Amino acid sequence: MNKQQLIDNIRRKQSFLCVGLDTDIKKIPDHLLDGPEPVFAFNKAIIDATADLCVAYKPNLAFYECLGVKGWQALEKTVKYIRENYPDQFIIADAKRGDIGNTSAMYARSFFEDMDIDAVTVAPYMGEDSVTPFLTYKDKWVILLALTSNKGSHDFQLTMDIDGERLFEKVLRKSQAWAGDDRMMYVVGATQGQAFEDIRKVVPNHFLLVPGVGAQGGSLEEVCKYGMTKECGLIVNSSRGIIYASKGTDFADAARKAAQEVQAQMAEQLKKIG
Amino acid sequence: MNKQQLIDNIRRKQSFLCVGLDTDIKKIPDHLLDGPEPVFAFNKAIIDATADLCVAYKPNLAFYECLGVKGWQALEKTVKYIRENYPDQFIIADAKRGDIGNTSAMYARSFFEDMDIDAVTVAPYMGEDSVTPFLTYKDKWVILLALTSNKGSHDFQLTMDIDGERLFEKVLRKSQAWAGDDRMMYVVGATQGQAFEDIRKVVPNHFLLVPGVGAQGGSLEEVCKYGMTKECGLIVNSSRGIIYASKGTDFADAARKAAQEVQAQMAEQLKKIG
Repeated sequence: MNKQQLIDNIRRKQSFLCVGLDTDIKKIPDHLLDGPEPVFAFNKAIIDATADLCVAYKPNLAFYECLGVKGWQALEKTVKYIRENYPDQFIIADAKRGDIGNTSAMYARSFFEDMDIDAVTVAPYMGEDSVTPFLTYKDKWVILLALTSNKGSHDFQLTMDIDGERLFEKVLRKSQAWAGDDRMMYVVGATQGQAFEDIRKVVPNHFLLVPGVGAQGGSLEEVCKYGMTKECGLIVNSSRGIIYASKGTDFADAARKAAQEVQAQMAEQLKKIG
Repeated sequence: MNKQQLIDNIRRKQSFLCVGLDTDIKKIPDHLLDGPEPVFAFNKAIIDATADLCVAYKPNLAFYECLGVKGWQALEKTVKYIRENYPDQFIIADAKRGDIGNTSAMYARSFFEDMDIDAVTVAPYMGEDSVTPFLTYKDKWVILLALTSNKGSHDFQLTMDIDGERLFEKVLRKSQAWAGDDRMMYVVGATQGQAFEDIRKVVPNHFLLVPGVGAQGGSLEEVCKYGMTKECGLIVNSSRGIIYASKGTDFADAARKAAQEVQAQMAEQLKKIG
């Protein structure tokens, strides 16, 4: 998917919601566990209940890997289901990969060729040659970790160098030489509040993937106030707040209601950019 | 495996070699491709040919993930084969993971509980709470990226802060508060030469996992000169130089010869510490 298609989807749906498919076998409703493919069954129900309210789905690979072979089967089946039934969805593999060049190339092949995923989250620590193998695919995206939503973001990401530049700003600045805003986005945690202002000084036009609204405590209003651009420029993720809205047989309905609430707030915010 | 067991294995085998199982389906000998499990067949032959010459095996997960479900099957089978037949081997999942706490915990469960792997490589960018979930298992290890072997290591890892500390040094220093040298190691690329001296000032007793000898051009002698401790303190990885020493039907013999050469050099180096 290219940038214009994403923007069009956001306008049409009045939503920039990404539903995080962090599907934990230990947290899904009991009645699904009797079936042959509980993780896929859960995802399918969540997707069918929310697809008109969101523009993206983001499976976090940890939740699939921890199930081994069965987990990978569930992931592949989920991606295929979205592709075939909701082709306007932007699919993000939240993998936080990054390795030496020939190895990153293998990961890129896996996500972009074999699974036809739109975007992969990548960690910047190993620098340019660990990221660029992901950037060689047309209309496929790298979402580079910049300033994350967790407490540990303070340990290294805010380190200020001798020129007064913080590490996350250096990541934003340097990585712009690797690709433009047509194939690069950045992860910025919703919990980072006013840091969005500083980030927009460095990357005024890039899309930001924003986790941390909901369970992690970030505020959608604040994110929009400091981070929204004329093209929206935001994909805001909610995982636990939506997919685990209920643990009963009504989990899909509850997820829909939770997604509707967020979508309504997003529509309000989108009015501001017309 | 605990630190003393690892040291004992190194002494007994006169080797601190790790064989990197970066098994690329596109590079393994043609005659294996006709079998039902070519990746596992290749790994099994390499392992049988090298197990007395090395102390560790390190599958890089990218090479398995890119094959989807079949890749995970090959990985699980390889780990099981090593565990059952060569219980003195230290198994490293080269995964370079790292995510928010609850997600890192899922990865840890996957590698340490489900697969009984000894160590996982972890990227430090997201800070303490992305690493500590891997540190709660007795005799299991985090191998944290510090100063990697690739060109991109210069992009961020050498960033100097206002106090004159470089990012990789900050990673080494801060992470020591998270766990001791009984469950933490660091990745330092063999291509970094004299930087090992600086690293040993910060972490005098930790084991270092050293990739980059062989195909990437690092020198074993230089690594030992600046990085070796009284307990050895090094696990040096070679992947392509060993596993692809021949592309013919003699690939396992060729791998053994290549491993023997490295082991002989290592025995020389170990003489220096007695």
